Amino acid sequence: MLSIEIQQTDGKARAGVLSTPHGQVDTPVFMPVGTAGSVKGVTPDQLAACGSQMILANTYHMMLRPGGQTVEELGGLHKMMGWDGPILTDSGGFQVFSLEHLREIDDEKVVFKSHVDGSLEELSPRRCMEIQRQLGADVIMQLDECPPGDADREHVERAVARSILWAGQCKEAWLDHGRSDQALFGIQQGGVFGDLRARSAEALVELDLPGYAVGGLSVGEGHDAMTAALDAIDSQLPAGKPRYLMGVGEPRDILAAVQRGIDMFDCVMPTRNARNAFAFTWSGRLRLRNAKWTKDPAPLDENCTCYACRNFSRGTIRHLFMAKEMLAATLLTIHNLHFFAEFMAAIRSSIVAGTLDDDARRWTSQIYPSTQNPGDQNPT
Amino acid sequence: MLSIEIQQTDGKARAGVLSTPHGQVDTPVFMPVGTAGSVKGVTPDQLAACGSQMILANTYHMMLRPGGQTVEELGGLHKMMGWDGPILTDSGGFQVFSLEHLREIDDEKVVFKSHVDGSLEELSPRRCMEIQRQLGADVIMQLDECPPGDADREHVERAVARSILWAGQCKEAWLDHGRSDQALFGIQQGGVFGDLRARSAEALVELDLPGYAVGGLSVGEGHDAMTAALDAIDSQLPAGKPRYLMGVGEPRDILAAVQRGIDMFDCVMPTRNARNAFAFTWSGRLRLRNAKWTKDPAPLDENCTCYACRNFSRGTIRHLFMAKEMLAATLLTIHNLHFFAEFMAAIRSSIVAGTLDDDARRWTSQIYPSTQNPGDQNPT
Repeated sequence: MLSIEIQQTDGKARAGVLSTPHGQVDTPVFMPVGTAGSVKGVTPDQLAACGSQMILANTYHMMLRPGGQTVEELGGLHKMMGWDGPILTDSGGFQVFSLEHLREIDDEKVVFKSHVDGSLEELSPRRCMEIQRQLGADVIMQLDECPPGDADREHVERAVARSILWAGQCKEAWLDHGRSDQALFGIQQGGVFGDLRARSAEALVELDLPGYAVGGLSVGEGHDAMTAALDAIDSQLPAGKPRYLMGVGEPRDILAAVQRGIDMFDCVMPTRNARNAFAFTWSGRLRLRNAKWTKDPAPLDENCTCYACRNFSRGTIRHLFMAKEMLAATLLTIHNLHFFAEFMAAIRSSIVAGTLDDDARRWTSQIYPSTQNPGDQNPT
Repeated sequence: MLSIEIQQTDGKARAGVLSTPHGQVDTPVFMPVGTAGSVKGVTPDQLAACGSQMILANTYHMMLRPGGQTVEELGGLHKMMGWDGPILTDSGGFQVFSLEHLREIDDEKVVFKSHVDGSLEELSPRRCMEIQRQLGADVIMQLDECPPGDADREHVERAVARSILWAGQCKEAWLDHGRSDQALFGIQQGGVFGDLRARSAEALVELDLPGYAVGGLSVGEGHDAMTAALDAIDSQLPAGKPRYLMGVGEPRDILAAVQRGIDMFDCVMPTRNARNAFAFTWSGRLRLRNAKWTKDPAPLDENCTCYACRNFSRGTIRHLFMAKEMLAATLLTIHNLHFFAEFMAAIRSSIVAGTLDDDARRWTSQIYPSTQNPGDQNPT
C-alpha cells in the first residue's frame, strides 16, 4: 500500500522513493495544498507541469463542503480533483483546534461550529477515519490535538496524551473498516519539549503505523526552536518509514528539516504567497506589486523554465496584479510551485552527491540575501 | 498586412480565411475578449487549446493601465499577453461613451474621468491611433461614437456624422504615423435606422479601409431589430473585405449575423458567463450553482472534448463554485470558449456544405430549448 525506499543518505538526510497506489514520488517531497479540492490558481495539468508529484487536501474543508459522502459519490478525491497522482489528507484536527468556534473537546471527540453554515459538527477518531475513507487519499492522518506555539507544558502534555490515545483509536477504526489502499500516519506532538516529543514518538512507533508525521511545529515557535525539536527525530522514528513534517514551508526550514531526516512537507506558502504577489526565486523574493517592476521586461527569474517565466515579464505580471486579473495569481502560483519542485529536486541531487551541508548553506544565503529589500519580504 | 479570402458562400454567409501578420484565422471567427491584457480565467496556452484563433483587447482599459507607452516598452500587446496569434483592439470609444464619468464631447475629442485614478483623460481620433499604434494589435479600430440602444434619431444622426468625420481623421493619422502591419477598420453606426446605416456605410467605403465593422448593435435593441439592421449589410460593404459585428455575442445572434454576411465577432459572454457559473452546451445552458448538480458525476456536456469535460464532473464544478475556488471559473471559461470555437467551426463547415439555413434552425432549437429550466437561463 505504501513504502519508502531510501536510496542514499547524507548525514541524516535521506533521498528516497515513496511508492503509493497512485505512483511513485521522489523524496524529499513538497506537497502543494489543495484546501477545498483544488490547489488554488492552477489546473491539475498545470500542477503536474510545475513538477508537483503529490498533493494534500484538507479533511476539515471537504467534510463541511461538499461532505465526505458527496466526495465518495463523485468518485473520491482523485477523481474530483482531476489528479491521478498521490494525495494525502490531513485529519481536520489542525483546523478544528485553530477555530474560533471550537465548542467542546474531551477525550472522545471535538465539537465545533462549521464556518460554512454555522452547524455543529463533530470529529472523533472513528469519524475522522470514516471521512478520510470516503475521501480516498493514499495517505490519511490520525486525529490529533495540535496546541498553539505558545502553549504551556501542561497543555502540551495533555495534547500528547490525547493524540496517543486517538492514534490507537484511529488505527483500530482503520483496521476494522478502512481501505487497504490507504496508509495511516501517526502524528508526533510535544511542542518544544524534548521529553514530550520522545514520549509521543515512542508510543506511536509502538503502534507500528505505515508512516509518521511531526505535528505542532511551524506554529509560531520560530526556526531555532523548530530545528531543536527536530534534532532527535532521526533516532525517534524508524528508518524504514516515511517522515512528514506538517505545515512546513519556508525553504530554510525545509533545508533544516531534511538535514534532520524528514522526507515530506506541505505548506500553503507557495500558493498563498503567489496570490499575494510574492515570487520565490533562487536569489530572494520579489514583491510584484512594487512599482519598480512597471516597465521591467525581464522574467521573474532569468534561469527559470516555468510557463510564467517563458512567456511573461515582471512588468506584465505587475500590471495583471494591479488590474486584479486572475492570470496574475495563476502565473505566480505556477512559478512558485515550479520553484518548490526545483528546490526539492536540487536538495535530492545534493543528498545523492553528498554535498547537502555545503549546498544548504549556499542556498540559504542566496534565497535569504541580507541585502533583500524589506519591501520584498514575504508577509508571513 | 491584412486580407480575407472568401472560400465558399451559402446565401450571404461567407466561409473564408483572414490573413494577418500574426497568422491566419478561419472565418467566421469569434474573438474572446482580453479586457485588460488577459482573457479572464485562462492562460494563453489554455486559450489556444480551446480553439480560439484571434482575440480582442480593450484600448480604453490598456490606455488607463498600464498605459500605451508602458505596453510599448514591454514589447507590445502580443508580448504582454503571451499571445502570438492575431489581436484586435477596439478604439476605446464604446467604453468612454458608456461611462458615467463622461465629461465633455465635441467633434475634436472626448474628455472623461479615469475609473482607475479619477484623472481627466482625452481621446481624439489622433490620440486613439497613437495609443493603438503603441499597443500594436493586428487590427485597430477607428474612434467612433456609439449611442445607446434607445437613442432618438437626432442623436444617432449626430453620432453617424461624427463617426464618419473621425474615420477620416483616423485614416489620416494612421497613414501619417501608423504601422504598416496594422489594419484600420471603419465602424458603421446608424442604430436601427436603415437610411443612417446606409449613409454611414457609404462614407466609410469611400475611405477604402482594410475592413469594416458594424457598431451600435447589441446595445439593447433586441434580436429582431439587430437582424433587421444587418439585412442590408452584404450590399452595403465590399465583398472583398472583412466584416466585423462588434460586441456579439449570443449564439442565436451570431447565426443570424453570419447568415447576413458577417465574418468576425467578439463578446465577453463566454468568459463572463463562465465566472457567473453558466455553461454553454449544444442542448442549452447550465447554471452550475444549481443544487441539482451536487452529486452529478457527468461532465458538463457528454460530447465535449474540452479539458474541463475530460477531467471534471458537474458535481465537482458546482462544489468549486460554492467553495469560491478560482478553478471553477477557469474550468467553465475553458468549456465556454471551447464551445464557441466549436460552434464557429460548425457554422463554417455548414457554409461549406451549403446547409447553413437548415443547420441554423436546428442548432437554435437545440441551444435554446423551449423546455429550458428558467433557473438555467443566463443572466444577460
